[in-house]
Amino acid sequence: MSQGTLFIISAPSGAGKTSLVRELIDSLDGIQVSVSHTTRERRPGEVNGVNYHFVDVPAFEAMIERGEFFEYARVFDNYYGTSRPAVAAMLAAGTDVILEIDWQGARQARRQMPDAVSIFILPPSREELERRLAGRGTDEHVVIARRMRDAISEMSHHDEYDYLVINDDFTTALRELQALVIARRLTLERTRENHGPLLEALLSRQPDVE
Amino acid sequence: MSQGTLFIISAPSGAGKTSLVRELIDSLDGIQVSVSHTTRERRPGEVNGVNYHFVDVPAFEAMIERGEFFEYARVFDNYYGTSRPAVAAMLAAGTDVILEIDWQGARQARRQMPDAVSIFILPPSREELERRLAGRGTDEHVVIARRMRDAISEMSHHDEYDYLVINDDFTTALRELQALVIARRLTLERTRENHGPLLEALLSRQPDVE
Repeated sequence: MSQGTLFIISAPSGAGKTSLVRELIDSLDGIQVSVSHTTRERRPGEVNGVNYHFVDVPAFEAMIERGEFFEYARVFDNYYGTSRPAVAAMLAAGTDVILEIDWQGARQARRQMPDAVSIFILPPSREELERRLAGRGTDEHVVIARRMRDAISEMSHHDEYDYLVINDDFTTALRELQALVIARRLTLERTRENHGPLLEALLSRQPDVE
Repeated sequence: MSQGTLFIISAPSGAGKTSLVRELIDSLDGIQVSVSHTTRERRPGEVNGVNYHFVDVPAFEAMIERGEFFEYARVFDNYYGTSRPAVAAMLAAGTDVILEIDWQGARQARRQMPDAVSIFILPPSREELERRLAGRGTDEHVVIARRMRDAISEMSHHDEYDYLVINDDFTTALRELQALVIARRLTLERTRENHGPLLEALLSRQPDVE
């Protein structure tokens, strides 16, 4: 089984990334979203290693010391982070892994995993982005304006990515994400690793007939 | 409009390339098979520039002299060839172009068009390839054996290609070819060229609100 591919996916809020990624992993086999580490309490129904890797604060801080995180953040009293060794283990098992991460995390991840494929998802227009960021209209203008500034700031890094997907029509954007994953699975290197016996059978010389 | 991509597609006979390519161009917009040049007579219903570029022998030989062909062949009294300037004109118009060509032509094309994406299509098994090459069973063993040797010789060059597609299930193989074409259209370079005004609108700074 060949090594999986790391797909780094970034987008401003309002681009529809979360729904697209959920549908992408539902529609294809062998691809998963990376599982984050956290120090917060496990809630009823949550499974360790599925929803999060649940660790205590000393363990998390030791991981920080060892430089294992692509990115981490402290939210109130809890740490959240994306661990490189955890992602590497999934890739080694042949699973394609999606890292949903902002442009700063993407830079770290790209530097540490140079074979990663990075994708930036864009909204279809300025008007549509504003509409989505305005939500249900209950927010103040000032809040919406701040979200818009954050979105523009995130989007200003689109040119650091390998591929751009414009989420105008959801089905089209989903198909494009699927195409990026499928294409990567067809590279010479991966197909050769995954189909060694077939290639050997196809290329073996036949006995002479004449 | 961005430059199109040249897709070089090779396969041994019996791999199903012709049907896959026909269905590929029927299923996607903006992609065409390259049109060859020939010196043979135009037949009723054939359209110059669509079925072939019909030229006379002096014109064809002048193109040979100028080194314009990726490959050409003389079959009985007629020349057939694939012209680089003709392909380049389609690419410049933003059309993706498919070059169905053997491994030798593929080498030429790759050298002269380094941005080309090359794809090799493989049959699903040795047994299936033999079955397909045996055709309807009317051929002599010696003929089938020669076809098999030719197929093995062609397949021995699979490792010079960027991507491998195994034509086991037609629908899956078609979807994989589509993915390779779609993925290429999503590269940063092409999307930026094709969506300049959108990017400009998304990234323009908003007036300060506070």
